[in-house]
Amino acid sequence: MTNAISIFDTTLRDGTQGEGISLSAEDKIKIALKLDALGVHYIEGGNPGSNGKDIEFFQRAKSLGLRAKLTAFGSTRRKNSLAEQDSSLVRIIESGVPAATLVGKSWDFHVHTALQTTLEENLAMIYDSIGFLKRNGLEAMFDAEHFFDGFKNNPEYALSVLKNAHNAGADWLVLCDTNGGTLPGEIHDIVTRVRQEINAPIGIHTHNDCELAVANSLAAVQAGARQVQGTINGYGERCGNANLCSIIPTLQLKMNYNCVTDQQLQSLTGTARYVSEIANVNMPVGQAYVGNAAFAHKGGIHVSAIMKDSKTYEHIAPELVGNKQRILVSELAGQSNILSKAQELGLDVNANTEKTKDIMNHIKDLEHQGYQFEGADASLELLLREAYGETTELFKVESFKMLVDKTNGHMVSEAIVKISVDGQTVYTAAEGNGPVNALDNALRKALVQFYPEIENFHLSDYKVRVIDEKDATAAKVRVLVESSDFSSTWSTVGVSSNVIEASWEALVDSIRYALLGMSKIEVINESKERLGLVNH
Amino acid sequence: MTNAISIFDTTLRDGTQGEGISLSAEDKIKIALKLDALGVHYIEGGNPGSNGKDIEFFQRAKSLGLRAKLTAFGSTRRKNSLAEQDSSLVRIIESGVPAATLVGKSWDFHVHTALQTTLEENLAMIYDSIGFLKRNGLEAMFDAEHFFDGFKNNPEYALSVLKNAHNAGADWLVLCDTNGGTLPGEIHDIVTRVRQEINAPIGIHTHNDCELAVANSLAAVQAGARQVQGTINGYGERCGNANLCSIIPTLQLKMNYNCVTDQQLQSLTGTARYVSEIANVNMPVGQAYVGNAAFAHKGGIHVSAIMKDSKTYEHIAPELVGNKQRILVSELAGQSNILSKAQELGLDVNANTEKTKDIMNHIKDLEHQGYQFEGADASLELLLREAYGETTELFKVESFKMLVDKTNGHMVSEAIVKISVDGQTVYTAAEGNGPVNALDNALRKALVQFYPEIENFHLSDYKVRVIDEKDATAAKVRVLVESSDFSSTWSTVGVSSNVIEASWEALVDSIRYALLGMSKIEVINESKERLGLVNH
Repeated sequence: MTNAISIFDTTLRDGTQGEGISLSAEDKIKIALKLDALGVHYIEGGNPGSNGKDIEFFQRAKSLGLRAKLTAFGSTRRKNSLAEQDSSLVRIIESGVPAATLVGKSWDFHVHTALQTTLEENLAMIYDSIGFLKRNGLEAMFDAEHFFDGFKNNPEYALSVLKNAHNAGADWLVLCDTNGGTLPGEIHDIVTRVRQEINAPIGIHTHNDCELAVANSLAAVQAGARQVQGTINGYGERCGNANLCSIIPTLQLKMNYNCVTDQQLQSLTGTARYVSEIANVNMPVGQAYVGNAAFAHKGGIHVSAIMKDSKTYEHIAPELVGNKQRILVSELAGQSNILSKAQELGLDVNANTEKTKDIMNHIKDLEHQGYQFEGADASLELLLREAYGETTELFKVESFKMLVDKTNGHMVSEAIVKISVDGQTVYTAAEGNGPVNALDNALRKALVQFYPEIENFHLSDYKVRVIDEKDATAAKVRVLVESSDFSSTWSTVGVSSNVIEASWEALVDSIRYALLGMSKIEVINESKERLGLVNH
Repeated sequence: MTNAISIFDTTLRDGTQGEGISLSAEDKIKIALKLDALGVHYIEGGNPGSNGKDIEFFQRAKSLGLRAKLTAFGSTRRKNSLAEQDSSLVRIIESGVPAATLVGKSWDFHVHTALQTTLEENLAMIYDSIGFLKRNGLEAMFDAEHFFDGFKNNPEYALSVLKNAHNAGADWLVLCDTNGGTLPGEIHDIVTRVRQEINAPIGIHTHNDCELAVANSLAAVQAGARQVQGTINGYGERCGNANLCSIIPTLQLKMNYNCVTDQQLQSLTGTARYVSEIANVNMPVGQAYVGNAAFAHKGGIHVSAIMKDSKTYEHIAPELVGNKQRILVSELAGQSNILSKAQELGLDVNANTEKTKDIMNHIKDLEHQGYQFEGADASLELLLREAYGETTELFKVESFKMLVDKTNGHMVSEAIVKISVDGQTVYTAAEGNGPVNALDNALRKALVQFYPEIENFHLSDYKVRVIDEKDATAAKVRVLVESSDFSSTWSTVGVSSNVIEASWEALVDSIRYALLGMSKIEVINESKERLGLVNH
């Protein structure tokens, strides 16, 4: 039997069933690109029969040039009707995907209770619907819902459902532990039984209701399943789906299966964090393999042993999954990223100089406060160039005030800023439809007379994230601002326990970055000269 | 063989090695009482040899009258010394506990690399130290650190370590997967091997680095281990320890073992949430069995099936572990979700009345504006109860103002609120470390004279999300606020293009919900009467 495992990612479909997970079509496009880079084999994009957002996603995804197969999700046809006339099935074909997954009942109790039809009609629904996909040239996966509960209750019927899907042409029979209540030993035994009865490619789809979704997926693979369905970070309904971020490295590093390339595996941590950023869900600090604390060692015996040999307290080398070791008492990691960024900017860096060490310490300090430069290249560039004396002070902020007033249902947001440029003070105010908008308007109004090019770019994206939620309204907030002109975009970051101050910081950085001419390589020299950045 | 499993809780010791987990002696006392009520058999309180806080805890814990055995933790004696003169071992005896756990090396690599001593001296260290505990009348557990890695590397030496501890009188031999890198099949095989070689009570202690700690604990029990060490919510170093909140119900409800009584099992959810409150760590919403979303249903098809029979999408009855079913409302679901939510609240709903249609349209309209009620049960409940005339106006907001001022680097956030209660106007102001904190402080200050119970709950979580990021600072923002008292949590939502207004809206809803007595079933009637909610 082959050691190759097909990874089927359903973050964009089943993942969005998780409480608090809501993705726009744009979010889905971004995540699909990351998943493709990670090397998953199938990306389930959504359910075109259930909502317009998913139709938009499939439309836009066509031009992405993904290597992964894009798949759509749907149910078997309605009872007592024709597959050809089932609007959900028709929309799957219309969405233009090369593959689709249809979920159908395999637990007799569900056929009676939820579908309220006969066991025979359920078989016909499956046969017709899979056949419809095949006649339209799609690769067809059959998700046998509640397969393990069904098998325990009525093994003959559960198997007849699979055989029926197989006879209709299904390319994969995916056994689902929909309620997440099955144990690893049962999964292993039942998958083994299925393989004795049916010679077809088997997939596994588990849920985490007993905190066993990962173990259940591995047990199925050991029993012969060759497709694993799951989500990034285990997002999904109730307790979530099987977490691909734990399954992929375990299969590959510990069980000798092939899922993705070694290089792709190194993007796992980055992918997990990116998806959590887009989904706006904090990653548990202790998440296996990819969590910030997954290779973090607290002081004492562990740390001194780690210093002798990492293997003493690490089950794998963190670099294999793109994570890194952290020593919680004295942070030692992360400087290679920053060094390479500085080199990329043409700055003369050397890991051993005092200056480089000072910069590293400063950045480490900022990260400790909650800054994150991964999504804020422009702020990092400003910081590095400042350290090398490559910036000038374009304006000085003397003060800002922000007033929000709601009286008798009438809402006003006003900002007052006081800045100085070359000793000349400007004191002005502006309104906005919210506090950040008001601050942006006021700052631009104050600056436009000195830097008319400020009209050439605008804020294009604004994200707020509570960093440490346990302190509730006293928690720190990180704001990411993205700005754009016609040819490029750049991102900046601000951190504070005050959302207004964090926003202000990111706004000011964004405007400085643009006015310093950093956003456009082609005008850097011209701008530098005008702004006095070139030494004469 | 007996079906009774000893539950050994190390939340207070190994749990505190988790990043961000820090417990005072007072916190530990509170948690110990809860663990005792849950019915765990051992409570590991700390390491009296390593810090004074733990000594204080053991001192105070003596008078608690716990049914569980209180245990202390330590290491085997230092190399080339006497157990009787090892200050850490002596402090264990002095702490007055009836039982103690000593960790010792069982992986030859660790003996050489970390301890830097001989294999023979390590055996002597274990023998002497366990013997010292036994001579002093304690029950002795031996934690064989890295046992599985050690066994794989040098099975004879690993077994000789266990035999040595057994000969010294150890009451339990606890096999530790310290690095969390072992797979369930390996655990099962190695525990089986150990039991063939040594006739002693075996325990299991696993870590979650592969997201397999629960599966590994279960595999060990199936192979004959009869003590399970773990922590509440899986707290612990790196990726955490085995999560007792998943292990106990699975052993008891699905595998026919006895851990606690059925009644104690019903306190599991409450215990998990209480410990997370004391530890000041947010519980993942989808945590198995005890999470807020563990039995929450979002998909429309799922919800309509659940209405017919809960077993269709629930692997156990949530009440068995003290949790409850929740129906989430979202774009993915139809109106059946809202209807069942209303029914759950005891409201007289009928899908076909004009009133129900009006409510549905109103909610749809709000969702269109960006509201999302799936994470904001309390706001939805307020909305439904209001529609049915089941609320009263507790206070009226006349106006609020929020001022943020940064001058010369000095930041001030002030809020001014004007409210009226029964015609009496209060106009007051407060500061905060950010605008939302200032608003919360001011509103509470204005209300406390009328509703002193406002001091009994607090904001526990605050989330901000930009709904449509393309519009940048003019975009709409959704704020979710979670509030807690010691027995429950509730969430509210606010939406506005103004982050301050959205926060205010969620804050006001949160306070109204609590003051209307909705958060606690047991006080609803009393509160309703006091608040004029009961019709006379």
